[in-house]
Amino acid sequence: MISKMKFKIDNLQYCNWTREVFKINREAGLDAVHATIVYHEDFNELGEQIKKWKKLFTENSDLIFLGKDFKDIEKANSEKKTAIFFGFQNCSPIEDDIGLVEKVHELGCRFMQLTYNNQSLLATGCYEKVDSGVTNFGREVIKEMNRVGVVVDMSHSAEKSTLDAIELSEKPIAITHANPSFWHAAKRNKSSELLKVLSDSGGILGLSLYPHHLKDNTNCTIESFCEMVARTADIMNIKNIGIGSDLCLNQPDEVVEWMRNGTWSKSTNYGEGTKNKPGFPKQPEWFEDARGFANLERGLSKIGFQEIEIDGILGNNWYNFYKTI
Amino acid sequence: MISKMKFKIDNLQYCNWTREVFKINREAGLDAVHATIVYHEDFNELGEQIKKWKKLFTENSDLIFLGKDFKDIEKANSEKKTAIFFGFQNCSPIEDDIGLVEKVHELGCRFMQLTYNNQSLLATGCYEKVDSGVTNFGREVIKEMNRVGVVVDMSHSAEKSTLDAIELSEKPIAITHANPSFWHAAKRNKSSELLKVLSDSGGILGLSLYPHHLKDNTNCTIESFCEMVARTADIMNIKNIGIGSDLCLNQPDEVVEWMRNGTWSKSTNYGEGTKNKPGFPKQPEWFEDARGFANLERGLSKIGFQEIEIDGILGNNWYNFYKTI
Repeated sequence: MISKMKFKIDNLQYCNWTREVFKINREAGLDAVHATIVYHEDFNELGEQIKKWKKLFTENSDLIFLGKDFKDIEKANSEKKTAIFFGFQNCSPIEDDIGLVEKVHELGCRFMQLTYNNQSLLATGCYEKVDSGVTNFGREVIKEMNRVGVVVDMSHSAEKSTLDAIELSEKPIAITHANPSFWHAAKRNKSSELLKVLSDSGGILGLSLYPHHLKDNTNCTIESFCEMVARTADIMNIKNIGIGSDLCLNQPDEVVEWMRNGTWSKSTNYGEGTKNKPGFPKQPEWFEDARGFANLERGLSKIGFQEIEIDGILGNNWYNFYKTI
Repeated sequence: MISKMKFKIDNLQYCNWTREVFKINREAGLDAVHATIVYHEDFNELGEQIKKWKKLFTENSDLIFLGKDFKDIEKANSEKKTAIFFGFQNCSPIEDDIGLVEKVHELGCRFMQLTYNNQSLLATGCYEKVDSGVTNFGREVIKEMNRVGVVVDMSHSAEKSTLDAIELSEKPIAITHANPSFWHAAKRNKSSELLKVLSDSGGILGLSLYPHHLKDNTNCTIESFCEMVARTADIMNIKNIGIGSDLCLNQPDEVVEWMRNGTWSKSTNYGEGTKNKPGFPKQPEWFEDARGFANLERGLSKIGFQEIEIDGILGNNWYNFYKTI
């Protein structure tokens, strides 16, 4: 089994979830998807989102089910379904209560970002002016996440906070969706120094296909993307690289506005967008949805990766990471 | 009126509120008290506390009423009652929602700390290792507090955060309850540099009578305290000094444990106490409750303050500050 395993995993999507999306993910051969189920919601609001997901699982039981650990990836593969793993892009569901970490785990949560773009109670986001690192409460929460089995995700966090989290966490952490900043210098992308520390600690990077994280945005070529993967593999162990596409299929533009502004500002922050381009950017044509995994497979092969390396990047590396949770 | 005014104000108490406490405050001649009504409560939990206060106002209408602005201090003085001004020692009641600042003001809130001891969404508390200053959300909230009329209180905040708040706030800010660290080097006390910047900006310091903020703790002498006031008046304009006693009359020890630990830790933090002395410390005998204002009056006179200066420190300075809200 181990020698033949070949899983496909997209470790970050935040789509407007419909049967159509689940079908596309199956067409793409995805055995697992880490789905963002909340951003800035509190614990009660999380409950509302989980209710919606229960309905989705019931109505689409031929396509998806709730994933709880790595064995569900194997199960999905053999049943030709997609295991959905729940994750949060902010820590607001645990509010200021250490006891809620275990509760969100019981509800299915397997990944939680310590911050979105702003300062949280746990750490600093990449859009703040000063990065104070992991806070007192953050230290307690990381310990508890390690204990119950929720992965520390630092995708939107600032650099010192991320380095702190790597040091404090007894289990490997994840950056589920971001790219290296040597390739495209966005606030959300990560420095080579950080990626090396992440990899050395056993942590994993999910490469993003979200246009604001890509060189030349929507016009990014697949050749450029795959060249970036090759250069990233010079910095990181190739076994610590996966995909976290950040696909937001069919989301209306007000959703990205809410992601960026929550309820914390009276003025509008355009985040990675601009006043003229406030909405979701158009995907590159070679990755309009998860079926683009096939293009990645070809592109990575063309640039010289071996089959076992490509299998790793497109899913097996995430599968192995799930074994550490 | 102005020339003869002589108000007594204690600008921080967190007592276990009973008719007895209100009577003591009247015996002390207090025209106004800034009462902490919540620490780590969220917006709904704040509502519960306000319900309790409505009952207290009804049952003790001969002694207290809800204060809304400086005119209520004058009213209290003429009616021989105490105006109670609501304040929060953490920003948790506004959650992550800028819209709640106006709502808490409507509910009576006139002072809000940007942090308790830990990092908040707005700024850094004095017990954190690193102080990143006021956050993005913090900037927005200060603007909104200025607009609606809630005083920025930095009593429990770290130094850079406090300096940021002074700079960002268009209205004077307050440190409602703390002492200078030159006198007693507690984490909660403030540096001379900070106190000077505070005073130069029109901000005000409420001197604390809480034993952990006092030199020699419970055994602090009134002479030492009044000497400290004199030295503080060398750093700050004497018109920017008042009293914020931090009296916690009749509170059981579990309350101070909750203040210090909230729900954010599985281990116990003893804050200003120690494992051997985890509870509330005993007040010095010359300030067991607000009736100690009479001792302060004598002590300040003995050390050489003029009557107009003493009147300022014991209430008139706070009264003038309330005019700026």
